[in-house]
Amino acid sequence: MAGYSGTKDDYAKRLRRVEGQVRGIARMVDEDAYCIDVLTQIAAVTKALQAVGIGLVEDHLGHCVVDAARSSDAEGAEKVREASEAIARLVRS
Amino acid sequence: MAGYSGTKDDYAKRLRRVEGQVRGIARMVDEDAYCIDVLTQIAAVTKALQAVGIGLVEDHLGHCVVDAARSSDAEGAEKVREASEAIARLVRS
Amino acid sequence: MAGYSGTKDDYAKRLRRVEGQVRGIARMVDEDAYCIDVLTQIAAVTKALQAVGIGLVEDHLGHCVVDAARSSDAEGAEKVREASEAIARLVRS
Amino acid sequence: MAGYSGTKDDYAKRLRRVEGQVRGIARMVDEDAYCIDVLTQIAAVTKALQAVGIGLVEDHLGHCVVDAARSSDAEGAEKVREASEAIARLVRS
Repeated sequence: MAGYSGTKDDYAKRLRRVEGQVRGIARMVDEDAYCIDVLTQIAAVTKALQAVGIGLVEDHLGHCVVDAARSSDAEGAEKVREASEAIARLVRS
Repeated sequence: MAGYSGTKDDYAKRLRRVEGQVRGIARMVDEDAYCIDVLTQIAAVTKALQAVGIGLVEDHLGHCVVDAARSSDAEGAEKVREASEAIARLVRS
Repeated sequence: MAGYSGTKDDYAKRLRRVEGQVRGIARMVDEDAYCIDVLTQIAAVTKALQAVGIGLVEDHLGHCVVDAARSSDAEGAEKVREASEAIARLVRS
Repeated sequence: MAGYSGTKDDYAKRLRRVEGQVRGIARMVDEDAYCIDVLTQIAAVTKALQAVGIGLVEDHLGHCVVDAARSSDAEGAEKVREASEAIARLVRS
């Protein structure tokens, strides 16, 4: 079971909205919308995606990492290493 | 005519790919994929979107801002202000 | 003359403040401050630095890029290319 | 004891380097260095600061959060919430 299974429907809804926003940006480009308006949408979608990522990090820490920490030092350390790398990719994206 | 009209097809193709990637993330969540794998995709899609944004900034500077600068000081200054705000939103997203 | 010479003193003041904040973070680490408090300061300093960067972009566009655009197509295009690369580094940092 | 006490000297060294880099940027501005060169330094310092932040997150997760998770559900949940907020600030900076 994924760490986010408790909030899965919310993520599904938010990702569908992001998908629609990206489709909307493609339509703006197709209709030669003003560059600044397209850029404004891109910044908004990037923020929405980051917010999903931040939520998933919290769910992962609160379930997978905490469970691993309770089962053994080694498992806990591995999950922390893995989570930190994922957080680094999010920070650098 | 938009500043990006010369590269419009490329943006359309990239945005369609991003749209497909977002749909793919939704499917991963639906199938209870491991949190870290979902996070990896979110970081990749965020980077792809930013790259589209950076390309649009260059097109906008090279056409709309440069043209405005050549027509009058006031128009040039207004386009620079507007572009800088859009760049700030991109940096902060 | 730099594009930012008109606002040079303001940048100098803001950079001195950032320098002091970084020194403050080092002192927090030296005094074993709680990780979260140190992280909060790091996020604040990163934002302050980005704000200086965004200001410099606007000054550069409004002076160096606009002047180059008015002098020749080639110079304008080169300055736009160069500025866009700097903006990309800022977005990706 | 802070979660990062094991790597404290390394952070101290890196923060001193960042402090020196910020001082260097101030000197560049004072000497009217070309905007693009100043922006390049700002992007580099921002990345160095983020790297310190990412390291502190890993140390915090590996010590403070894991220890709290092992002591009680409530303490573990509180530390995860707090760490996630700090990670969000880092992602958004």
